Order: sequence, then C-alpha cells, then structure tokens
Amino acid sequence: MPCFAQVGNRGAGLTRLDVFIDRMVSQRVCLDYAIQATADMPGPVYELGLGNGRTYHHLRSYVSARDIYVFERAVASHPDSTPPKEMTILGDVRETLPTTLQRFGATARLIHADLGGHNLSRNDAFARVISPLIEPMLALGGLMVSSDGMYFDALTELALPPGAVPGRCFMYRRDRWQLRWLTSIRSDSYGCASPEMRRVRAAGAGVKQQI
Amino acid sequence: MPCFAQVGNRGAGLTRLDVFIDRMVSQRVCLDYAIQATADMPGPVYELGLGNGRTYHHLRSYVSARDIYVFERAVASHPDSTPPKEMTILGDVRETLPTTLQRFGATARLIHADLGGHNLSRNDAFARVISPLIEPMLALGGLMVSSDGMYFDALTELALPPGAVPGRCFMYRRDRWQLRWLTSIRSDSYGCASPEMRRVRAAGAGVKQQI
Repeated sequence: MPCFAQVGNRGAGLTRLDVFIDRMVSQRVCLDYAIQATADMPGPVYELGLGNGRTYHHLRSYVSARDIYVFERAVASHPDSTPPKEMTILGDVRETLPTTLQRFGATARLIHADLGGHNLSRNDAFARVISPLIEPMLALGGLMVSSDGMYFDALTELALPPGAVPGRCFMYRRDRWQLRWLTSIRSDSYGCASPEMRRVRAAGAGVKQQI
Repeated sequence: MPCFAQVGNRGAGLTRLDVFIDRMVSQRVCLDYAIQATADMPGPVYELGLGNGRTYHHLRSYVSARDIYVFERAVASHPDSTPPKEMTILGDVRETLPTTLQRFGATARLIHADLGGHNLSRNDAFARVISPLIEPMLALGGLMVSSDGMYFDALTELALPPGAVPGRCFMYRRDRWQLRWLTSIRSDSYGCASPEMRRVRAAGAGVKQQI
C-alpha cells in the first residue's frame, strides 16, 4: 500500500475530528499524569460529568472504584462504565459540589471535569460558575484536570505533560491553602461517618495538619 | 514537571477511553488515506451515519460538500457539521441504500460507515445486513472505510495505513466487478437528472465501459 502524506495542513485548518482527537488524547495524557502523581494520596477522586463513562472507566482501571465519586445529573452511561449507586452524587453540580465539600472537606486528590458541551462561550461561563465551588475541595498536592480553562484564585496551572495539546486540556494543582476556606469549612462536617468516610476525612485532616 | 511513564499496561488491559481513542485515530488515518487515494475519481462520497458530524466535517474539509451524500435517520449534528438538505438522504439505510443504488449506480468513490452503537454483536449483525447493500454501490477503485468489519463478497480488504490500529477500523477496495450486479442495476436508473447527477452517472458509466 502506498503511504500517503497526511491530507491537508492540520496546523492551518483543524477539522472537528482533529480537535476532538486532540482533546481525547490530551485528556488521557493529563489523567494518566494526575493518577500517577496523586497515587500515594489518600483522598477521593471526583469525576464531574459521567456522560458515556469512558473517562470513568479509565479512572476506575487505575483507581479503586470505592474512591471515585461521580457527579451527574442523570446517569446514562455505557453499562460497563456505570458507577455504583453509593458512589454516584446525582444532581446539579452547583448544588452537589457545596454539599460534598461540607461532607468531605478539602480532601480530593484528583478532580476531573468534562462538563462542557458544543457551545464554547456557554462552557466558559459555566467554568466561571463552578471554579469557586471546585477550588476548596482539592487537598494540598491534589490535581484538577479539566476540558475547559478554569478560573481559580489559588491553584497553580501546570504545563501539560508530553503528548498533550495545549488548550485541549487544563491541569491545576493546589500548592497552598487560602485562609478563608479553612475558616469557611464547618468543623461539624467531620462528624459521624462510615469507616470509609472516616478514612477519607482523616486523610484530609492529616493534610491540614501539615499546613 | 516529572515525566511519568504511561499508567498501567495498555496492551494487557485497554480501557474504553483507550479503545475509543484508537478508533478515532484509526478512522482519521483511514479516511485521510481514502480521500487521497480516490481524489481523482469523479463519483460521490457517501457518509453512512452522521451522528455528531465530526467525520462529515473532516470529509468536507477535503472533499467538496456538493459531492458528499449523508445517510441518516434523523439529523442531530453539530451546527458546524450539518450537510445541506439536498445532500441528506433521510431514512433507514436498509431502504435508502438500495434506492440510492438505483439513482446513482455503482459510482461511489468513497463510502464511510460508522453506524455501530455500544452493542458489538448487534453491530456485527447490522454489518451483515448492510454489506450486500453497500457492496454494489462502490465504483471500480473506490474505497470503503468502516468502523465495523464488513461481509463483502468481492471487495478486497486492505491492510490499514501506518498509524491505524488493526481491528479499530476496516478498509476495503473494489478491484473487480461481479457480473450479477451489472445485470441487476436497472438501466432506467440513468434517466433524467440534474447536471450534477449526469456528471456522476457519466463517471459511473465510464468506469463500466472499462470492464
């Protein structure tokens, strides 16, 4: 078979298929980096937006399903990629993120968000709304991987790992705390809990003691 | 930033995200090959299954939209990737493929099919049903790119171009005719037509004269 060169000039005019492939490849590269970089952290992983469940399936292959909480309005994923009910947090993330912060505190080791749709300006507006809700949930050293650029006050935006395409995925890390979050997290959110919750919360408390 | 190795062993346990990326990358590699290999052929291009419209957008970036007929039950594509009405053939492909064969004959230079869903055995059964409907539509030298393995009598299955992953995409070429199709294509299907249709049909007739 003759080996043809790539059709056209990708740099000059990317097709929607090109952009989509770049986005999926970048998402995997960033997730793989984040999974490995946070592997020794004890907190939970949050998957914001389940959709078809492909990235959940990917996360679950490397992180225990008992550690992955999935935030979704209504589950409509592939049967192979459906989280257990007790790990599914149903509802609008504008409501479920704050209640989960109350429940678990700033303990998340990895948060992945792929909540956007086709409308880029609407995605951007939504990223502005949820950024302040996501930011206080991340543990010190925790990573956030997002398909959209986010608007964080105190997280460090990271250069993407090799193989990811800048602009197709975004990665952030908590390198420091902001005092106002520490005082705004109600102390009673560390009350009664299952053994798993106690483990998660203890991990969060452990991190805080290092401040 | 430290450079981590890939998480896990992809070969031993591909995730659904891995498989999906392989499928999309292979689809693009095969389409690019097929677009270039058939660039000098005069017949139409058939896109079977529009979906979100990403591969249609890709095809349209390299092939005139006036040459691409899209087969779909109901159009629900991205606004940037919606074909003109006159190029959209609405309905069940089990009905629209035979009527299009009557209309244009064996003239297609490139047929791309991505009709499968999540259920692999159902995809395979559907591939068996539509293979004999697709096969007679392809011009001599024409290529068929499919996300599912097809069941053709006389098309040559090609090795995939470099960069494509075997099993994630399939490519076939018409290298010879089968007599029963030539006799089964009604001669009156070359009747009245628009200038464009006449051009397409003349191209098909031209190919037949070379047999």
